[in-house]
Order: sequence, then C-alpha cells, then structure tokens
Amino acid sequence: MTAPAQPRTVTAAVLIIGNEILSGRTKDANLPWLAERLNAIGIRVMEARVIADIPDAIIAAVNETRARFDYVFTTGGIGPTHDDITSECVARAFGLPLVLNEEARGRLERHYPPGGLNEARLRMAHVPEGARLIDNPVSAAPGFQIANVFVMAGIPAVMQAMFDGLRHRLAGGRPMLSRTVAAHVGEGVIARDLGALQARYEDLEIGSYPFVRQSRFGASFVIRGTDAGRIAACAEELEAIIRRLGAEPIPE
Amino acid sequence: MTAPAQPRTVTAAVLIIGNEILSGRTKDANLPWLAERLNAIGIRVMEARVIADIPDAIIAAVNETRARFDYVFTTGGIGPTHDDITSECVARAFGLPLVLNEEARGRLERHYPPGGLNEARLRMAHVPEGARLIDNPVSAAPGFQIANVFVMAGIPAVMQAMFDGLRHRLAGGRPMLSRTVAAHVGEGVIARDLGALQARYEDLEIGSYPFVRQSRFGASFVIRGTDAGRIAACAEELEAIIRRLGAEPIPE
Repeated sequence: MTAPAQPRTVTAAVLIIGNEILSGRTKDANLPWLAERLNAIGIRVMEARVIADIPDAIIAAVNETRARFDYVFTTGGIGPTHDDITSECVARAFGLPLVLNEEARGRLERHYPPGGLNEARLRMAHVPEGARLIDNPVSAAPGFQIANVFVMAGIPAVMQAMFDGLRHRLAGGRPMLSRTVAAHVGEGVIARDLGALQARYEDLEIGSYPFVRQSRFGASFVIRGTDAGRIAACAEELEAIIRRLGAEPIPE
Repeated sequence: MTAPAQPRTVTAAVLIIGNEILSGRTKDANLPWLAERLNAIGIRVMEARVIADIPDAIIAAVNETRARFDYVFTTGGIGPTHDDITSECVARAFGLPLVLNEEARGRLERHYPPGGLNEARLRMAHVPEGARLIDNPVSAAPGFQIANVFVMAGIPAVMQAMFDGLRHRLAGGRPMLSRTVAAHVGEGVIARDLGALQARYEDLEIGSYPFVRQSRFGASFVIRGTDAGRIAACAEELEAIIRRLGAEPIPE
C-alpha cells in the first residue's frame, strides 16, 4: 500500500513596490491581507519582497519570482505620478510594449469630469500588450494581469477590491487549515518534545511563537496543514505534552 | 567648476524570516522600525524580504543580499525550537561550521535557573565560527554578527534592544532627511508639474502618496534627500505649484 499522492502546493510571491514602505513612513497592510485570502483558497505565499522604485530592482524581482512561483501579486506604483513605474517595469520584464488599452481609457473617461483625463491620468490606461484588465470599482484606474503576474494598486481599499474581483481567475490547491494551541510553558522546556512531534507529523508544519502575557512567558503553537483530521490528532498529542509538562493548554 | 562628489549611499537589506509573517498570522513590525533607525544614521534600506522557514530559501536570500548591499539585518528564527533554523542557515550561507560559543553559553547559564540550560536552549549558544555576539539584554540568548550580516531575534522588543546595542558598529552615510507637504489636490492634476519638479531636483526623491480624508481626495508629497537646503528649496517650489493649482499646502 502506498501513501496517497500529496497534491502539489500552489505557490505565490507578493511584491510590495514603493520607497514609502522601505523608508518606514508607511506600514504595509497588504501582505497579511493577501496572505490570508490566498491561504483560504489553497495558495501559499512562499516569499514577499518590498522593492524600491528602481526599474532594475522591479524588473529583476518580477522575472525571478514569476519563474519560481505559480502566481505573483504586485501592489503599488500604478498611479499617475512620475514615481509610478510598475506597469512600465512589468512590461519590460516580459519584453512587451506598454500600450494604451481602449477599454481602460473608456473607464477613466467616464470616471473623470469632462476634460479631466489629462496626459498623466492617461498613463493609468497603459498596460503591457495583451494584458487582461483587473477591475477597480473604487477609483476606476484598472490593474492588469499578464501571464501569472497580477498588478494591483497599493492603497489597501483599492487592492482589496481588485483582488476580490480577480480571485475567480486563480486555481488554488487544498486550503491551508490551522489550529493554535497556547500554553504558559517555556519554548526551551517543550522544544525537544515539540521537535519529536514535528518529526512524527511531517505532513504538517508546527510553528512555535513565544509571548509574554501578564508578565508570564508562554508560547503559541500553530499547526498548519491541509488535512483536518491530522491536525486534530497532532493538536491532541500536543495538548498531552503540555499537560505532561505541568501546564494547561489554552485553546485560541 | 564641477559639482561636489555625491557621497556613496550606504545600503542595507532586511530579511524577515518566519512562516508566521507569510501566513498573515503575525504582522511584521520590525521593518518600519529598522528602516527609521537606519535612515537616521544614513543607511538606506533598499530591499526587504519575508522568507519562509526553508533552509534553501534562507541561504539563497542571505547570500544574494550580503553580496549586493553594505549591510544585511535578519530578524527571527533564533529561538530554541525545531523551526528556529536561521543560525544554522547563515552558517551554511558562509560555508562555516556552527559552533558552541562559550561566552553565549555562560550568559544562558546565568539566565536560567540551575539545570535549566537543556539541549534545546543550548542551541541558542551556537553561532557560525568567528561570529561576534550581539547582546540581548531582554532574554539573554544573543544574536550575532558575521561579516556584514547581523542576525537578530524576531520579537520586536528583543530585536530593538539588540539593534540599539549594535548600532555603534555600523558606518552610515549622510542621514536621509525628509519633508512632507500635503494638499487636497488630485495626483492626476499635479502629476505633470511634479514630474518636472523631480527632473529639476535629480538629487532628491519626490514621492506622491494619495489619501482620502473627510471624503476629500488629496496627496502627501514626500521630499527626501541628504541636503536640507535643497529639500527646503524644493518644498518651496512645490508649495507654489500647489497654490497655482488653487489648493493650499498642508504642512505635516
């Protein structure tokens, strides 16, 4: 009897483009949001990068990640100002011309008051040749998809609306499930048993995250995987380990 | 007459190691904090990566960034549990053995109650051969520096204490200064003038970040550079542009 074949993990990278994140001025809120949504449909974020507004850096990151992961999601740099260079860089990464998309132009024309669609705003209607638009129900200017790369806005409300509209285009795997068990037990005290538990459940991933609550040390143990039954069995063993160490499991 | 030589920019990369950030469970707080502190001493974060707890991914990211940037700062993965693999991976990236550091062992021995320094905790006293310790005044287990790579804890309070203790080892450039001017003016309305302004101030970096406040659209313009006089001159021109467009600059 052989073990059933593990379905292949569907993977993604997230590229957060913008000097404002690297300078510390703006705190990124897009990675955790995207990671949760992607996880829920069985797509696992394997890497995220925060990249400066430098063409070579953007082009290299797009080409490296699109070759290594099933999907790449970019956020930021698709507005009308001089520092918005993502679309142009993605086109260059693919060796494609950046062209005016008539559908995008029409959406912008209807969005602005008559005469408002100036040259700067018209930049937002340019996409790599052959790209498919991503709707922007918030502020009209669309994102786009080219092959496995999805180019979205950086403003969280706009990015979220774009993602919800494109989600049906994604083919995920089995959703990642997780269960957290916490306890007031030192990581160093439980480490050996925890490592042995991980070795017995190779198909799951057990993470250990220390905390201090009300001046007491403890740790949260997160069990992740695609099989609910295995996760439950692992959690039960973990709770037994915690009790054996004289502590009480705290469900989360 | 030639322009004075621009001092070279001192650069850094930040590697945030841990599945919990990529799953969306934990929101990273270390990048913005580090970026601000580094900026203040003239070190510019050019790239940040969030990396999974996968040896090959960590080794590749360490080797790629340490070759490209002056400094590399890692956070996360140096605790006592099986998922803490950063130290081992950094040693492998440098082709060095991971060895017990007697000074680190002494600190841990003094930190735990007698007999408390078990095998799992002793893992935290192992560093790549030749590495220099980074003090941990919060919970004893040290980080370490090897060449231009600084390996720190993931817990923000510990990472911050470690960084404050190692800062004197860093040689920065001229600190990055910035000034922000905001206005209730559409990015698409000001984009052309802003692009022309950026072209006249090539030594500065002008970023444009749209916002919605009290249902009114606007944007913050962040002028960054190392020369306070140039920044002030650029800000003055920017304020004149904003007024010419019928809006009022909002200092921030």
